Order: sequence, then structure tokens, then C-alpha cells
Amino acid sequence: MIKTVVFIGAGNVAYHLAQAINRSDFEVLQVFSRTHLSAKGVGEKINCPYTNNKNEIIKNADLYICSVSDDNIIDALSDINFTPNSIIVHTAGSVNMNILNQFSEQVGVLYPMQTFSKNKEIDFNKLSIYLEASNDETYKELYNFAIQISPNIKQLNSENRLKLHTAAVFACNFTNHLYRLSADIMQESGLEFSELLPLIDETCNKVHYLSPSEAQTGPAIRRDEKIIQKHLNSLDENKKVIYSLLSKSIQYEKL
Amino acid sequence: MIKTVVFIGAGNVAYHLAQAINRSDFEVLQVFSRTHLSAKGVGEKINCPYTNNKNEIIKNADLYICSVSDDNIIDALSDINFTPNSIIVHTAGSVNMNILNQFSEQVGVLYPMQTFSKNKEIDFNKLSIYLEASNDETYKELYNFAIQISPNIKQLNSENRLKLHTAAVFACNFTNHLYRLSADIMQESGLEFSELLPLIDETCNKVHYLSPSEAQTGPAIRRDEKIIQKHLNSLDENKKVIYSLLSKSIQYEKL
Repeated sequence: MIKTVVFIGAGNVAYHLAQAINRSDFEVLQVFSRTHLSAKGVGEKINCPYTNNKNEIIKNADLYICSVSDDNIIDALSDINFTPNSIIVHTAGSVNMNILNQFSEQVGVLYPMQTFSKNKEIDFNKLSIYLEASNDETYKELYNFAIQISPNIKQLNSENRLKLHTAAVFACNFTNHLYRLSADIMQESGLEFSELLPLIDETCNKVHYLSPSEAQTGPAIRRDEKIIQKHLNSLDENKKVIYSLLSKSIQYEKL
Repeated sequence: MIKTVVFIGAGNVAYHLAQAINRSDFEVLQVFSRTHLSAKGVGEKINCPYTNNKNEIIKNADLYICSVSDDNIIDALSDINFTPNSIIVHTAGSVNMNILNQFSEQVGVLYPMQTFSKNKEIDFNKLSIYLEASNDETYKELYNFAIQISPNIKQLNSENRLKLHTAAVFACNFTNHLYRLSADIMQESGLEFSELLPLIDETCNKVHYLSPSEAQTGPAIRRDEKIIQKHLNSLDENKKVIYSLLSKSIQYEKL
């Protein structure tokens, strides 16, 4: 049974996940990060020991949560002598579980699908955690752990997690980038980005009730070419390329 | 003082605006649309007369709201003998007010910035109406009218309204299109689009507290090139082009 946790890595996911774990009955024993300031940031936030010295990592925790950038997972876990009973998971959307096999026989993935920034609180009741494990026993252990962090636990294999993450990049990361571009346009005109918030809210709200296809509005879907041209004329080169491409895509054209 | 309203055009904006007006103290006298079904749809919704015969348009209303696709505004208003006291407005984001000058001396724009679909209710308390008028007296009349439809009335000239609308296309229409692309990816994997809703909600929620630049997360801003490549490999041609372009744009590269 999982009772104690060590974090390997102290980025945005670890920062929020450690707090959620700390609010439950589990104990975070230690936070390790190569970067002293990151280790300290998470450690102090949840009032637990932290280190940037790999040799000091506690060896007999029940669960090690590796939450580093995807390319650094193997490196971060190398040269730690885990006790054979420990479970090791990573939290990445697009990394196959099997890269952990070299470190333990009980491995898994605990992927909380959300957009995590340090200075924005996250409600773990409103996200899903996608779980995968190398065997049934490990899955049960991870499930019993995760269900106390979030009420929404779903089983998903590595292949579908990659697809889910790819979809999430469109729905979240790219969407936020469009917000940035719209904020640029507003600023150029001396308008406040906040003026767009009711529209942004309703755009998001709509797809709770309609499919995105049904919800589509605007000049591109109406094929209002005169307006499209007016907008293009008012944009800088980068925004012009994006406006043109997304308008074509809305019109189901081949890009 | 505006008391009576005639709608010229019965699209999505008219459909929702007519209902909002109908809930206030004003009287919608008539709905005209070239398309019988559209006129009927709005007319029956608010229980008022409707016609698709231009000759039958009531001539002495206080306010004519022209809400047709942008290219059709002039055509829709031509050959109607408005009485000289009538005010004529359009509801378009990107059409200059001055195209109405040929029809009356009291003209204006009443642009409710929102994404309107027939089968999704709209709360007019949660949007802003952007107003412009050809003279102060007309502005006052329109303001006193609009403030009973929505508590958020803002004055904006045609030039800035065009910029606002352009920004809105990015923040709403293009964002919704990204939802559609993410829905495609989910469907290909047998996953439900609704799984993405907590992420979509938080992405939208975040920019109430952080600027879009501060809120940006994901592989592109982390320059996680291996993950970007994995995602590109899993996408069809159109989505590959969009993924690649938006990732570069997030990284502030020239497109």
C-alpha cells in the first residue's frame, strides 16, 4: 500500500501535484530537483525536505513520481538504487510507460491532464488523472492512491495517452496561443484583452452543449471573403499566415 | 425616443437580439428576411409579424436593425423608403458605419460581441454591446435603447471595431476550430471529446488571472522537440501543417 512519496523533479506539474498529495493522507517524504530553487519552491510550499543532491534521495519510499521534462526522464531516474518494492511512475502525456521498465518491475504512469502554471491554483476535483501500470497489482495500488487525489481516475494505455495529449495540445496550448495573438491585436489598438473574456468564456461554454462543428461561427465558415480580406489587410505577417491557414481549415480546404 | 423596432435580416444575431429586445420594454414591430423560413423562425420565436416581402416592410419604426451578412447590408436596405426620423443601424463587427449614410442622417452601429448559434441561449448580461452613431443625439437614443438590452455598453469607432472583431476571430472562431481539430483526434482514438472539457475550461479560466503569455504551457513553449515530433508523426497532413505553424508561432519564430 502506498503511504510515502518522493518527487523526482519539481516543475509545474510536481508543484501542484505535491500540494494535492499533501492535502490527502499520504506523506511526501522529499522533493528532489537538480535545480536548487525548484526543489526549494516545492519543498517549502508543502513543508517537506528537499534536495538537489541525487545521492541524498531517500531510497525506501513507496512511490516515486518522476515529473521532469519528457526528454529528461531516463536521466533523472538513472543511478538511483530504488528498493525492489517501490513503484515508479512518470506524469508525461506523450512518453511510453515502458521506458520505466529498466528501473523497476512495478512502474506506471499517472498523467493529470491539465494546464499547470505556478501562479494559478488548480482544482484536482475538476481534472482527470489517466493511469497505466505494468501489472494489475501495481494498477490497484496506483488507483487507490490516485482516487484520493482526484475523483476522476481513468485507465488509458500509452498509445491512447499520446493521442489524448496531442488533442490536448490543440485544445489548450494552441488555444492559449490564439488568446495571445488576440491580446496583441487588442493592445495595438489600445483595447484591453479583458474585453474579449465574455467571448472567450462563451466559446468555451458552447462546446459543453454543441459539438465544435455545430458551434462554429465567424467569417470563414460564412465564407465572407470581403471581411476575411479586410482582416488580413490589418494583420502583421505572422498573424496573416495563421489567419489565412485557419480560415482555410475551417472551410475544409486542403492546406 | 426609440420605442419600436423592425429587423431587416433574421440570422443568428437577429435571432438572439430580437429575443433580448422582446424581453425589454421595446416592441419589435416586424421581422423581415428574404428567406421565408428565417423570417418565420425569428417572428414566431418572439411572437411578432414577419415577412419576406420587402414592399411590406413597415415604414415608420423608430429603429431599423439591419443584421444580415456583411456583404448584403447595402442591398438589404436599398429601396426601403424610411421615414426621415428613423434610426438605422447594422450589427456587424467589420463594416464601417458610413455605408449607412446613404439611407438616413441618423445611423449607427450596434455590435453585440458574442458567438451566436441558434440552438444555444445567450445571456446579454454577460456580453458588451459596442455602439457608434452619426451624431450625439442619435448616440444618446441608441445608448438609452441598448442599456436596457445589456448593462455593458461601450462606445467604439468603426476603425477600432474592425480591430476588435479581428481579435475576436482569433479568440473565438479560430479557438473553436482548434476544438474541432482536437475532437477529430479524440474520435480517431475512440475517445470522447468531453474528456477535454476540464482542460478547455481551465485554459479559458486561466486568462482571467494570467496574461496569455504567462499562461502558455505545452511542448512548444518548453521547446520539447522530441514530443513535437511524436505528435507530428501521429497527425494527418492538415493537422500537421497547423501543429507545426502554431508551435513555431508560440516559439516567436518568423512564419
